[in-house]
Amino acid sequence: MTTERRSLMPGVHLTLLRRIATPHGEVRHGLRHDDADFAGFGEAYFSEVYHGHVKGWKMHTVMTMNLIVMQGSVRFLLCDDGSREAESCDIVLSADPRLGPYGRLTVAPGVWMAFAGLGAGVNLLMNLASHGHDPTEARGADLAALAHRFPQHALMQGEA
Amino acid sequence: MTTERRSLMPGVHLTLLRRIATPHGEVRHGLRHDDADFAGFGEAYFSEVYHGHVKGWKMHTVMTMNLIVMQGSVRFLLCDDGSREAESCDIVLSADPRLGPYGRLTVAPGVWMAFAGLGAGVNLLMNLASHGHDPTEARGADLAALAHRFPQHALMQGEA
Repeated sequence: MTTERRSLMPGVHLTLLRRIATPHGEVRHGLRHDDADFAGFGEAYFSEVYHGHVKGWKMHTVMTMNLIVMQGSVRFLLCDDGSREAESCDIVLSADPRLGPYGRLTVAPGVWMAFAGLGAGVNLLMNLASHGHDPTEARGADLAALAHRFPQHALMQGEA
Repeated sequence: MTTERRSLMPGVHLTLLRRIATPHGEVRHGLRHDDADFAGFGEAYFSEVYHGHVKGWKMHTVMTMNLIVMQGSVRFLLCDDGSREAESCDIVLSADPRLGPYGRLTVAPGVWMAFAGLGAGVNLLMNLASHGHDPTEARGADLAALAHRFPQHALMQGEA
């Protein structure tokens, strides 16, 4: 059902998804049990991020995330912990094809992530997570802690 | 994780879900693997329905649907096939607490459903389905076929 899958960095890849037009509103693909990215179903939850605000950093030690932007536009910043050769990526996904691709961002455990709301209204993503919420498997860090990995982004300087 | 669960008709119930405010945007619950409503993970997909438009009727013979409105407001009309004592329900769910409750509508196989877009902008729902899309397990009917079950709704008269 998917159209394109590409690696963005070790542990992170993007799968472009189909949008199917109908006279009453489109149908959009998400995730199927037989997709390569399906890592088990633990929980589906939703997270808003206001325009100009950033949520992060967070890193899961067990959970694989499958992230889809449902509304607005969201910039995702991802990086490793720097212990090896540093890897990072920076991608904007959107529910509006004029603002960014519609796709599923699959993030393996061990990758740090922050995300920022770009759209003027509500920015909303879904995480179709391999495991249910468990604070003991997640680590957090202040935005400033990894800001040096993305010096080009004013939004990482903590103004939100 | 859920706050309230009530039956709307045989095979259909509503579970109100938590919305958790944070300084950067709320987190909303969806579905967990250990919720009573979880009937297996087949596929997550999304469906828009334009303002004043209706999608339906459809009835699944195998799939259990778990439906959550992510954006806008959606009116759901559900009914049995009329072969027994007729049962139906009519409920509006919304991502905006001013317009309707935020919750998960669980629909067992064998229940007919149509849904209408009430919000002025985009109305979007997610179906976290127990089975992947399979046209052989779904039946469709024209809106007019079951309109007599909801005579109070002009939207069921096919104007959309």
